[in-house]
Amino acid sequence: MNTDKRTEISTLGEFRLIEKLTSEIKPQHSSTIQGVGDDAAVLEYNEDKYSLVTTDMLLEGVDFDLTYFPLKHLGYKAIVASCSNIYAMNGTPTSATVAIGVSAKFSVEDLEELYSGIRAACDDYGIDLVGGDTRASMTGLAITITTIGEVGKDKIVRRDGAKLHDLICITRDLGAAFLGLKLLEREKIALGGVKNGQPKFDGYEYLLRRQLKPEARRDVIEELAAQEIIPTSMIDISDGLASELLHICKNSKCGARIYLERMPIARETYKLAEELHLDPVTAALNGGDDHELLFTVPLALQEKVAQLGYGVEIIGHITEESTGAALVTPDGSIIELKAQGFHGN
Amino acid sequence: MNTDKRTEISTLGEFRLIEKLTSEIKPQHSSTIQGVGDDAAVLEYNEDKYSLVTTDMLLEGVDFDLTYFPLKHLGYKAIVASCSNIYAMNGTPTSATVAIGVSAKFSVEDLEELYSGIRAACDDYGIDLVGGDTRASMTGLAITITTIGEVGKDKIVRRDGAKLHDLICITRDLGAAFLGLKLLEREKIALGGVKNGQPKFDGYEYLLRRQLKPEARRDVIEELAAQEIIPTSMIDISDGLASELLHICKNSKCGARIYLERMPIARETYKLAEELHLDPVTAALNGGDDHELLFTVPLALQEKVAQLGYGVEIIGHITEESTGAALVTPDGSIIELKAQGFHGN
Repeated sequence: MNTDKRTEISTLGEFRLIEKLTSEIKPQHSSTIQGVGDDAAVLEYNEDKYSLVTTDMLLEGVDFDLTYFPLKHLGYKAIVASCSNIYAMNGTPTSATVAIGVSAKFSVEDLEELYSGIRAACDDYGIDLVGGDTRASMTGLAITITTIGEVGKDKIVRRDGAKLHDLICITRDLGAAFLGLKLLEREKIALGGVKNGQPKFDGYEYLLRRQLKPEARRDVIEELAAQEIIPTSMIDISDGLASELLHICKNSKCGARIYLERMPIARETYKLAEELHLDPVTAALNGGDDHELLFTVPLALQEKVAQLGYGVEIIGHITEESTGAALVTPDGSIIELKAQGFHGN
Repeated sequence: MNTDKRTEISTLGEFRLIEKLTSEIKPQHSSTIQGVGDDAAVLEYNEDKYSLVTTDMLLEGVDFDLTYFPLKHLGYKAIVASCSNIYAMNGTPTSATVAIGVSAKFSVEDLEELYSGIRAACDDYGIDLVGGDTRASMTGLAITITTIGEVGKDKIVRRDGAKLHDLICITRDLGAAFLGLKLLEREKIALGGVKNGQPKFDGYEYLLRRQLKPEARRDVIEELAAQEIIPTSMIDISDGLASELLHICKNSKCGARIYLERMPIARETYKLAEELHLDPVTAALNGGDDHELLFTVPLALQEKVAQLGYGVEIIGHITEESTGAALVTPDGSIIELKAQGFHGN
């Protein structure tokens, strides 16, 4: 390792780090339409459609904790999270590869559990599992999912198309997955060392489901297609609304105003947030793991979008770039949105 | 984790494990021509060509040791190893995604080193780096490379096409990368704790290069195309010749005889093997990391193949399935080839 100069990764943040590492990369093939910098890469293999490729790594101890996260659910969620990136390009996932690093603490039966979740998600989302690599690891479990999808060339939606006065829409709801995680963490501590202890989840089943068995918004993408609505920009909310909206603003060179009272937060999220002395709005803005969609549509589509259903909510609008991205509270205060650091989930 | 029944992963071996985990998977899309089970998955996106997809995970402490493996070389090698799978389908790699998990012991400069190697290999092999994910890890470095390539539909070569009497060819040479690794390990122990100690590599530069900066056999694939030779089966030698030949035999339902005196082993490999009291033939058969190509061609092409150059050697021929796969020694003894276990590199 380089010892002459040392810049801590934490000083950069994940997005600036990736930018720094990939900034010099220039595509050589005319078939590479878009490389690094959106939810998925865009490749051109035929006249009608683009191919989409997205890759994500999940690491034990950072992205998941197996003391409360069942392996089957982990497999399911890994596929869902990857699919969500394809939907965020207005595409359809078609195939996936899975690479797994696994230490000796896992048995064959454990891996079968993990794969049963992977297969269930592949079935639910119409994906062919086309490749796999399994390696011995020294420590714990590492999973990389690469999903390939497709999208009509006239249907593709990126992060860079939001225009002034466009409506900002999200699918409901936000913050529940984060509170589900907090609940699991609380019960892990409460039960520390107690064998066969019974965690207390009563009344919060919804939050647990949002964390342990999330769904990608295939339904929304299909409904947008049925209603012939093509968003001007779109991204999936894996790192929290604030961070994702900032991506759209940066890529589309625009500002944004979103309204606190429009934020879709579930009743259970409010309730547990109060119990745990957490701010539900912060959970919605920065919590992550929601796998909902954030997209923009022209103002002219307001009525059509309002009637969409499927949990689609209009929460604000696109503004001039110079105004920045901010949350407006009911009393008219303006709170600037900030991106998260390296560990943002 | 499942605690009712526990089968150790080590009792199965990597290939049987992957078979077990993926045996129930049936492709749903007509565009999925081949899923798990060859060097790369085969997908159909247009009329003329297939797309190829391959994914590999590399883990610190298992697949590489950073005390002697420079990060730049590691990045280069990771791309080379992945490309090699695409060449093994007689294809051309075109794009790759990189997912990295990295702990706090690494600096931004370290990651830049790693990426400089990744970029250099992408340049050398004409690959666009189209996607990346960087995650914090608890322990060490994890790298997953997914490479996408293409191949003319009439040119694709799989593992299952070897026919009786076909010639078995490999590109030279074998075992050098493994000996290079043994040399690095020896010097690591010899220098244990000595700061700025000078390892002794004199005379073995070739072995080090084979381990630290391997090349994928793009030249051979291009020459086969120029000579209009389409192998009947092909695989890349990442896990050692024995294991790869057994894959071809299993998939092509055939046996094989390879001849000890035809095995291409470099002078330096013999020399260091003697010094370290290792068997050079075992290194060639099971050493791994060679990234050479193993392929079969019809007997009628014997003369054409013998004139190929590019290090292509004819080492044996395909036999009836019932005869198994074996190495024939100069005195006529027959040694059955055996596959490696889970940790096979």
